[in-house]
Amino acid sequence: VNTTNTHVAIISIGAELTTGQTVDANAAWLSRRAAELGLPTDRHLTVSDDRRAIADAVRNCADRAAIVLITGGLGPTADDLTRAALADVIGVELEYRPHLLARVEAFFKARRKTMPERNRVQAMFPVGSDAIENTAGTAPGIAARFSHTRIFAMPGVPREMRVMFDRDIAPVIRPLGGGQCILTSTVYTFGATESGVGQAIADLMARDANPLVGTTAADAVIGVRIIARGESPDAAAAMIAETRAELARRLGPIVFGVDDSRLAVPVAALLTESGATVSTAESCTGGLLAGALTDISGSSAYFLEGHVTYSNAAKSAVLGVPADLIDRHGAVSPHVAESMAAGCRVRAGSAYALSVTGVAGPTGGAPDKPVGLVYIGLAGPNGVDAREYRFGEHLTRAEIRDRSVKAALDRLRRRLMPTNGDNRDRVV
Amino acid sequence: VNTTNTHVAIISIGAELTTGQTVDANAAWLSRRAAELGLPTDRHLTVSDDRRAIADAVRNCADRAAIVLITGGLGPTADDLTRAALADVIGVELEYRPHLLARVEAFFKARRKTMPERNRVQAMFPVGSDAIENTAGTAPGIAARFSHTRIFAMPGVPREMRVMFDRDIAPVIRPLGGGQCILTSTVYTFGATESGVGQAIADLMARDANPLVGTTAADAVIGVRIIARGESPDAAAAMIAETRAELARRLGPIVFGVDDSRLAVPVAALLTESGATVSTAESCTGGLLAGALTDISGSSAYFLEGHVTYSNAAKSAVLGVPADLIDRHGAVSPHVAESMAAGCRVRAGSAYALSVTGVAGPTGGAPDKPVGLVYIGLAGPNGVDAREYRFGEHLTRAEIRDRSVKAALDRLRRRLMPTNGDNRDRVV
Repeated sequence: VNTTNTHVAIISIGAELTTGQTVDANAAWLSRRAAELGLPTDRHLTVSDDRRAIADAVRNCADRAAIVLITGGLGPTADDLTRAALADVIGVELEYRPHLLARVEAFFKARRKTMPERNRVQAMFPVGSDAIENTAGTAPGIAARFSHTRIFAMPGVPREMRVMFDRDIAPVIRPLGGGQCILTSTVYTFGATESGVGQAIADLMARDANPLVGTTAADAVIGVRIIARGESPDAAAAMIAETRAELARRLGPIVFGVDDSRLAVPVAALLTESGATVSTAESCTGGLLAGALTDISGSSAYFLEGHVTYSNAAKSAVLGVPADLIDRHGAVSPHVAESMAAGCRVRAGSAYALSVTGVAGPTGGAPDKPVGLVYIGLAGPNGVDAREYRFGEHLTRAEIRDRSVKAALDRLRRRLMPTNGDNRDRVV
Repeated sequence: VNTTNTHVAIISIGAELTTGQTVDANAAWLSRRAAELGLPTDRHLTVSDDRRAIADAVRNCADRAAIVLITGGLGPTADDLTRAALADVIGVELEYRPHLLARVEAFFKARRKTMPERNRVQAMFPVGSDAIENTAGTAPGIAARFSHTRIFAMPGVPREMRVMFDRDIAPVIRPLGGGQCILTSTVYTFGATESGVGQAIADLMARDANPLVGTTAADAVIGVRIIARGESPDAAAAMIAETRAELARRLGPIVFGVDDSRLAVPVAALLTESGATVSTAESCTGGLLAGALTDISGSSAYFLEGHVTYSNAAKSAVLGVPADLIDRHGAVSPHVAESMAAGCRVRAGSAYALSVTGVAGPTGGAPDKPVGLVYIGLAGPNGVDAREYRFGEHLTRAEIRDRSVKAALDRLRRRLMPTNGDNRDRVV
């Protein structure tokens, strides 16, 4: 048994988790909270509602961590077995605590309901353990010790778990963090590959470094995660700030955001700063570009109007794209993308206009115009142009639409950057 | 070592998971897929990018499961340690396989990029293991054996992991399922509360029943999950079909889909069946309604055009909403919603037109027009009307926009239903 570490292990209990019907978000939440107390999480373990499996998991984690946080299995039904499994591990019996039953009964009474008989089991506790009040539901939590490890069992209902952790468990385990504080932050980039980003910051990504730096890719956005451990919250925050600044220096204009992976956020800020307005003309993205631009509160200050012109007739009628231009080059062409953007800008009276036309698939591809071929037009005070993107036929329709929206937002972001990042696309 | 069980253990690797920066959805997905092969999952274990922790997790899981599925840690960077940890567990060296490097190089070449030097490590494999082709990314997977356990390591990128599992791993482990089959299906409803649905089907939700029935709520869509275990795929499929039919009888028109939670799916089917077309006029949803309607491949058959008219000027210029109507009733009013829908229908020449105008917040609310107040207009061959929705001030901007899109889609769905479900909203 490791008695000197301050590691946390998290156990999530429930068949709905091991069968995959529910994605466990409790473990991630608890990890973040524990880290803020200076207590790093070593492992998450998920097991089903099985008394032996739960006991086995508790033993496994107690061997490796100073603190074991358990969620789930405290409800009133036959498959709520955390109480019994904890008693098994500690080697004690369950005992009935009448005053705790009174609290469960009061919970129902306050809601003008009668307590079902089966809730009686929620007043059963391993001998020697402490009850933790549940202010948001019926199931009390359990605080127990096994060897040198402190064990806390909480309900699986996220709201009840969160209230209980913050109110009753965090104050108890905080001293184990030794005043240390771990803060995390993520710097988001667009326009480079994960390995390209990794190469540019390889020396910052040393293992066991503090701050610890790593990359993650999700839907073409590469995030650079920073985990800083400081002697105080201020010290950790300073390390985060310093690393962010270094990343900005190294990675340049591909960096677009911090702790928010939405490309529309910097676009909204740049538009608002400069007092510029934008409108959109979409074909294959079908409104998602406008949706992303208006995802930001206060977007009415810069977003004038958007048009989804799916049919060729709508492209002509709404945006004024000449029918013969479509006939000659096809709807998916740089010519039509430019004409859509230019026409949209004029009709909306906006400073900028973005257009998207492409083949989102899975049907509709052709040898010369394959699925994933997208043109993005950008019209502005200095004229209009279109760029070609090839997102690849291995992507799904939803992915091609997502990439197209991001590429369009990024075009406008770079155009609006004070240093005009538009002209230096290849950075990393 | 247990040599007779057919249990699966799943290991997710990544500091972004143990620190709580990312919620692990891979484990849930793999559990569902394994169950469909008759292979129940025993545990999920998540550890950070630490060679010893990964090796410890693999040993722990190999002791308890016949199949260990690993995701993550196969990338090209220094914190990708799954290859090394697997070699440690098996007790072999890593060897370089030039022909696999050629594949990684080809992946970059197809995208007109040069392979970064660091990707070379993706051609390193534990001696005696097999490479699994990655058709969606650069990192090949690894198939290995340790004692009696079969181990499969996949990339952590969900898309790459899913393709690799379905294409190369499922066929290999299927025989271990012994012909048993666990199938899952979810019936989706809109327009009722979770407890309302639960009450209507309480007798179907008995514990240990087969099929096992339960409810989950996500973003106002209530899903009814069915898990059926049969002696054959056909037997399990028959149980699923029977339960689905019973749910449809009990729940009526609130049921809108099976295994696809997108309300646009039945709308697209109903429009296509009847040969009808639709157009959209959006204010607070800013293009997301058009985005949802065009999320379905082949949507050009029924979707004519969409307009995002955020400003009052755009509402008048694009949709012909009389300026004095906006002056008298405000942009968020049933009158403007009706006028937007009617104007959109005329300009697009579509059979139906949907309009949305509301206060998505968090700013812009007023005592008489609070955040969450939304009007949805529907124009069709028999005229136009608008309905009022109050989504509540406790919802976020994104949630209010999401609920508005769903309510609009559901209005059209019910209008298009052969029995005209539009007139019987309160079912459960």
